[in-house]
Amino acid sequence: MPKNNPLANAIRMLSMDAVQKAKSGHPGAPMGMADIATVLWRTFLKHNPANPAWSDRDRFVLSNGHGSMLVYSLLHLSGYDLGMEDLKRFRQLHSRTPGHPEYGYTPGVETTTGPLGAGIANAVGMAVAEKTLAAQFNRPGFNLVNHYTYAFLGDGCLMEGISHEACSLAGTLKLGKLIAFWDDNGISIDGHVEGWFTDDTPKRFEAYGWHVIRHVDGHDEEAITAAIELAQAVSDKPTLICCKTIIGFGSPNKSGTHDCHGAPLGEDEVEAVRKQLNWPYPPFEVPDEIYQQWDARAKGKDLEREWLMLFEQYQQEYPELAAEYQRRVVARTLPADFAEKADAWIQSCQQQAANIATRKASQNSIEAFAACLPELLGGSADLAGSNLTLWPKARGLQDHRDGNYLYYGVREFGMSSIINGIALHGGFIPFGATFLMFMEYARNAVRMAALMKAHSIFVYTHDSIGQGEDGPTHQPIEQLATLRMTPNLSTWRPCDAAESAVAWRYALAHTDGPSALVFSRQNTVPMARNAEQVADIGKGGYILRDGSGQPDLILIATGSEVDLAMQGAAALSDKGYKVRVVSMPSTDVFDAQSADYQRQVLPDAVPKLAIEAAHVDYWYKYVGRDGAILGMHSFGESAPGPMLLKHFGFTVERVLELAEGLLKK
Amino acid sequence: MPKNNPLANAIRMLSMDAVQKAKSGHPGAPMGMADIATVLWRTFLKHNPANPAWSDRDRFVLSNGHGSMLVYSLLHLSGYDLGMEDLKRFRQLHSRTPGHPEYGYTPGVETTTGPLGAGIANAVGMAVAEKTLAAQFNRPGFNLVNHYTYAFLGDGCLMEGISHEACSLAGTLKLGKLIAFWDDNGISIDGHVEGWFTDDTPKRFEAYGWHVIRHVDGHDEEAITAAIELAQAVSDKPTLICCKTIIGFGSPNKSGTHDCHGAPLGEDEVEAVRKQLNWPYPPFEVPDEIYQQWDARAKGKDLEREWLMLFEQYQQEYPELAAEYQRRVVARTLPADFAEKADAWIQSCQQQAANIATRKASQNSIEAFAACLPELLGGSADLAGSNLTLWPKARGLQDHRDGNYLYYGVREFGMSSIINGIALHGGFIPFGATFLMFMEYARNAVRMAALMKAHSIFVYTHDSIGQGEDGPTHQPIEQLATLRMTPNLSTWRPCDAAESAVAWRYALAHTDGPSALVFSRQNTVPMARNAEQVADIGKGGYILRDGSGQPDLILIATGSEVDLAMQGAAALSDKGYKVRVVSMPSTDVFDAQSADYQRQVLPDAVPKLAIEAAHVDYWYKYVGRDGAILGMHSFGESAPGPMLLKHFGFTVERVLELAEGLLKK
Repeated sequence: MPKNNPLANAIRMLSMDAVQKAKSGHPGAPMGMADIATVLWRTFLKHNPANPAWSDRDRFVLSNGHGSMLVYSLLHLSGYDLGMEDLKRFRQLHSRTPGHPEYGYTPGVETTTGPLGAGIANAVGMAVAEKTLAAQFNRPGFNLVNHYTYAFLGDGCLMEGISHEACSLAGTLKLGKLIAFWDDNGISIDGHVEGWFTDDTPKRFEAYGWHVIRHVDGHDEEAITAAIELAQAVSDKPTLICCKTIIGFGSPNKSGTHDCHGAPLGEDEVEAVRKQLNWPYPPFEVPDEIYQQWDARAKGKDLEREWLMLFEQYQQEYPELAAEYQRRVVARTLPADFAEKADAWIQSCQQQAANIATRKASQNSIEAFAACLPELLGGSADLAGSNLTLWPKARGLQDHRDGNYLYYGVREFGMSSIINGIALHGGFIPFGATFLMFMEYARNAVRMAALMKAHSIFVYTHDSIGQGEDGPTHQPIEQLATLRMTPNLSTWRPCDAAESAVAWRYALAHTDGPSALVFSRQNTVPMARNAEQVADIGKGGYILRDGSGQPDLILIATGSEVDLAMQGAAALSDKGYKVRVVSMPSTDVFDAQSADYQRQVLPDAVPKLAIEAAHVDYWYKYVGRDGAILGMHSFGESAPGPMLLKHFGFTVERVLELAEGLLKK
Repeated sequence: MPKNNPLANAIRMLSMDAVQKAKSGHPGAPMGMADIATVLWRTFLKHNPANPAWSDRDRFVLSNGHGSMLVYSLLHLSGYDLGMEDLKRFRQLHSRTPGHPEYGYTPGVETTTGPLGAGIANAVGMAVAEKTLAAQFNRPGFNLVNHYTYAFLGDGCLMEGISHEACSLAGTLKLGKLIAFWDDNGISIDGHVEGWFTDDTPKRFEAYGWHVIRHVDGHDEEAITAAIELAQAVSDKPTLICCKTIIGFGSPNKSGTHDCHGAPLGEDEVEAVRKQLNWPYPPFEVPDEIYQQWDARAKGKDLEREWLMLFEQYQQEYPELAAEYQRRVVARTLPADFAEKADAWIQSCQQQAANIATRKASQNSIEAFAACLPELLGGSADLAGSNLTLWPKARGLQDHRDGNYLYYGVREFGMSSIINGIALHGGFIPFGATFLMFMEYARNAVRMAALMKAHSIFVYTHDSIGQGEDGPTHQPIEQLATLRMTPNLSTWRPCDAAESAVAWRYALAHTDGPSALVFSRQNTVPMARNAEQVADIGKGGYILRDGSGQPDLILIATGSEVDLAMQGAAALSDKGYKVRVVSMPSTDVFDAQSADYQRQVLPDAVPKLAIEAAHVDYWYKYVGRDGAILGMHSFGESAPGPMLLKHFGFTVERVLELAEGLLKK
């Protein structure tokens, strides 16, 4: 018979009562994992409730994020700034206890979870960051970076493909300080899992090279303690602790069934649980002696103080490293000379006027910026040579523990979620690359970065039908619009090397949100710009070419189509029209400019033609129903890129035809 | 030393020469897998080159689709209608040999592959279809449905998360006639895989419950033959045959390296391969004796004839079953009375005027349509009770081999690709459900369905911030626009039960493409309609409410916001304005109507306000730059749905404010 631990019961009560009060939520997982959480948080977790930002704290990730009341209860009981009033407002507007744990809403929540499997991938990223940061900063006698990443996950996380991608890579990278707890309760929303989930999960994780601890009773303190100790003793493999638990533990009529998974227990059952667990207190009341046993503030203060003393010594021994640690990990700021160097690099790109693909321009920018940003941690999902993400000083983590490049393998979703974990951990600016088309495989990770405002950088090459022979499976059509409509995400599609350099600068300096940088496979034509125009690139949209006075027509274009717009404008000028060309590398940045600036660049009264080798629908926003759009209405085809561009109408002739249609209206 | 088989060498030569001529493509995989393919296709594959549509043929899926020249070579050599001229036009515009195998472009190509991992998931779907169809139609002495599904896959497929989802489920479903060949060549695009891929793949697949055959020399005919025989002998588990191969086999200087993975070998190396493999013929020339040994036409004709004889006997013994087989599997048509029954159902929904969530209306429609469509094969990614996808006569495949419902588990991407495989196989109309938010996890499968024009139906519930407490991780914002901008995909967001019924009818009858059906979690208000309006729902957008003469303003709305538009229109009418309400359940279907109809519904001169709890940017297309949009600009929040709708401005007051802003312009 499992024990009946009042410390764990405090979690159970808070969780079921908050769900009951909200009339919405998931009591089963918090009640089932309460014993594991109690052991982990009280005995092992290194943290300081008074300073959730302490850089060497252990990270805790609830990958089965629907069990959010578990982490809220833990934070509350441990002494974080999360009061009983906050718990009572579970799932209410503007509360600090939203339905799923949301990064930035609640002190102590390390990442937003809910979409299943993403949390464990974030945790892998945090463990990558810890291991690499340790290799870069630790010195003999100074284990400055030395913390664990703990993750809870359920059957749902394990069914999701992203768990395969992330955990496979974690095994390869030998992330010994990643410890995951599988809540093996045999239940998912549709019921008992054996009809749809029969994996031998321990064997699966052994196949990934993990250290697997089987058959742990998730309601037995001693067994859990022993398992965690065993996990910590193995330093060259991540550990999966397989915990047999009873979902909704304590509920006499609903435990062990999916009835307690995603709905309140009901008033009667809530009372029955109180009786069953011998908990005589009313809802939202925890007796002092329980609080006292949970309170982690004194211990946490001591732990951080010890670390601060270590850091002081480290500062004396290694002043430069300590300053870098302070900058990268604590303050999370760019080097003081970043802006100056970035400007110089942008100017040099403008002057070089190279006729190169923007993916090549991106690679040049990576090399230039990496020289002053040791925190850059690059990577690609097995397309380094196509995305052009390697630079001369890139060193792969598989061979160099203190390296700066991660070969992610063919794992777009895993990569992107790992990147989010690295960004949230701090100490690095991570980027990862794939073809723009395969952004789709990773799509929800991009959205999660945006939701969390994580400083993740997503690099996407082969950005249109211009990529050519690979055909429609590899040719993005609707993907740019998806990125642009993602709130908080900044999307750039530069037209040449100078715009590419500005896009990279923006992405690196835009520390409170992710960026998507979209580059061409094929060569682009460098544009001439005066100093003001070079500066205006940073406004997201600007006048690249103009006549005198009010134009007759404005051509708006992005990326590889800017040159076509310029050619079209020249041909229209020859016919006597006054034509403006607006280059629009980033619509979101342009939209964030003053209304005056936007009107000045795109005056309402002038007819507009947008040109982009992507879905037409996005551009009505700028050209209106009476404008025209030269874009894509269908999927692409397989043929050499230049033939495809011609086939789909990206020609000067077609620009003239559409333009003259507008001019004659 | 591996043998040097001229039959396999024919594949190698055609592949490397076609890639060389196209100056683009992937010679390594076809050259590496040529021996396996030769054994499989010549000795085992049941097919008839003269009739690629024969319903009982074995299915062959090249999941590592970049090796497309392998399948083109096989089809050409076996005698399919794919001539040498077609091979010479590899990767050229409008050829039948595009860069990746494209369903519908090439006779004998069973599914479009290229995005890694998707092919093996399609293959799982085909095997599900075969097994279920066999259970439904086979009778003692009549193994009418009795074919294998063979899939080739590479390391890339195995790294992708979708391979986990699909193969895990394949193990659970005991798909004994699915046989996969892993091309274990140790190379991916970035080089030798051991830096990023160290899985013990055989062990991983054993953990899924697969039959795994290890250590097969992929260049040894006898070993391959024995392995396939062994695979066929195990009928209650899918089999993974692990084939050690040398990528680019035959290339003296590039085999075994990533140099031959994704680029032509070069003229010199092509000649060196000819020498090495002792192949004296020029490019694109295959000697007659090789053709003769490859020619599968006579054998294929006999095989199909045998089957047709069996079918004739079956027709006599089981005339009704035979007629159903003919309809569902061969002709792929709906029952003759479908249209009539659908109309009656739609009318009854209109008359019932139930105040229900559209997800509930969807469930009612599923039940109604399932009664006349035994080919409906439903499912959900572990959200049956939330998506409302079960109906009284639904029977799960895990318990009923001849059932009509698949519990997919928490596997959105796997589910969607499996559905595509089922749809391509024929005999079923599959649908699968998840929350609209988690369409993103499966996004590329939706796109692939659209690219292939597969008759897949994707059901998405919890379609907006209206879903409430789960918060922004679960609240779609930009997802509707993504669906709408996907070419060939029909997207519906109905406002009540009648529109939901029409959406379902459309999706079921729209056999040459996929549909996405988007439903609310919360209740909706039934709309009054006359007969003409009921008929007009099928036009995608129609006038739901109008005054006399030219309106002063048009409100356009979809789904749960149509009621708000109606309330707003009533309030504006009270103020003396003539207001039209256009309900727009499907923008793509509306866009496909005549220009006249579109202008009649949305006359240019009238100002327009669009209302939808989704990203604003999509709606400029219909309201223009001078219209107004009441929609979302940001992510959602966690709170009860009605509070969120109010918080984000979905109120009559805000409609009036925006409307009057337009009316005063």
